[in-house]
Amino acid sequence: MGADASRRSLAVVLLSGGMDSCVTAAIARRDHDLALLHVGYGQRTEDRERRAFQAIAAHWGVERTLLARLDHLRAIGGSALTDPARDAIDARRPDSAIPDTYVPFRNTHLLAIAVSWAEVLGARRIFIGAVQEDSSGYPDCREEYYEAFNRLLRVGTRPETDLAVETPLIHMSKADIVREGVRLQAPLHLTWSCYTEEEVACGLCESCRLRLKGFALAGVTDPLRYRA
Amino acid sequence: MGADASRRSLAVVLLSGGMDSCVTAAIARRDHDLALLHVGYGQRTEDRERRAFQAIAAHWGVERTLLARLDHLRAIGGSALTDPARDAIDARRPDSAIPDTYVPFRNTHLLAIAVSWAEVLGARRIFIGAVQEDSSGYPDCREEYYEAFNRLLRVGTRPETDLAVETPLIHMSKADIVREGVRLQAPLHLTWSCYTEEEVACGLCESCRLRLKGFALAGVTDPLRYRA
Repeated sequence: MGADASRRSLAVVLLSGGMDSCVTAAIARRDHDLALLHVGYGQRTEDRERRAFQAIAAHWGVERTLLARLDHLRAIGGSALTDPARDAIDARRPDSAIPDTYVPFRNTHLLAIAVSWAEVLGARRIFIGAVQEDSSGYPDCREEYYEAFNRLLRVGTRPETDLAVETPLIHMSKADIVREGVRLQAPLHLTWSCYTEEEVACGLCESCRLRLKGFALAGVTDPLRYRA
Repeated sequence: MGADASRRSLAVVLLSGGMDSCVTAAIARRDHDLALLHVGYGQRTEDRERRAFQAIAAHWGVERTLLARLDHLRAIGGSALTDPARDAIDARRPDSAIPDTYVPFRNTHLLAIAVSWAEVLGARRIFIGAVQEDSSGYPDCREEYYEAFNRLLRVGTRPETDLAVETPLIHMSKADIVREGVRLQAPLHLTWSCYTEEEVACGLCESCRLRLKGFALAGVTDPLRYRA
């Protein structure tokens, strides 16, 4: 598509405030105008993630933003990310391939909000920073899941709705994501990934470890401060 | 399955408080213990529907209940059911096969909550009272949508999760639903269907009209009072 903003179609981007979603938004904005969606669901670092979202939206001057809340995910429980009694730092249990930070079916909740908003806005694409490789093994981060979701989207919306979910990071490694973010001048210094801390990242939780490994393999210095 | 309650598996039933979901719950409880889920999303008659939900749960002595809220559906707008500026009484617009009361992708939001709760509870089935025939033409009330959703469910949850959505009313007419409700002694007198009123049903909105037609064709007197 051309650079003429008036001819660019609109994309809804799910922006948690983490590195992956920030790079995803940087990819989406090459071809689309952005509408940025942030969803709080009672996770421990919710306030910090929302601040990261707002900083990234301001950095790019995006005015179409929606902050949604899914309070029932905390009421339902079942994840270390939303249950204060469970330990998110050492998340991977030896007896399961799925880490304890898994929020049951979480991405379906997030995508449903994105689809409803996209239908109302007339957006043509939804972008989500799901990563299949080098990720945490969540069932709803695999390409197969997004194929099934796009099928649901086709049959579950108005016949005239022309909308699809894109997952540009799905087969990238964390190092690839860091390199792509640097290349596209994504504001990685404004992102937040840590599952447990809100000021200085812990450096120990699964999310910090994956992020730090990505920066190290990409040969790039992570602009965030870490405690460990 | 046998009548021994301890050997019955658990089913999550989406119970709006309307007639269809009440009859669906009556069908589900023949073979399952129930967990009843109600979702408010800023619809006009939200308080009345919640009271109907609570009355039906109490009628059957169901203690596992979850009240969830989707406030962002009101923020997103796009439907006469959630937008006070739009007219829900005369819902069907001449220029579209989809009525104005359509909430974009609504059932995906409801089912996502049901799936997350079902995974945590260990439930084996989710029941939803979707009706394809004799309904309002919503895209997410068709059998094709539920086939796609069940595929998403298989690929989007833990490998050990054994869960599926059932739609026992999908090919029933409203008259069939009334007859089935009477046969199963569903508490139809506790249900609420009207889109606009909370004390005496209007009798004019699309939901009232479909309900009244169903009772008339079934030769059964509707226990609710109507203004028109």
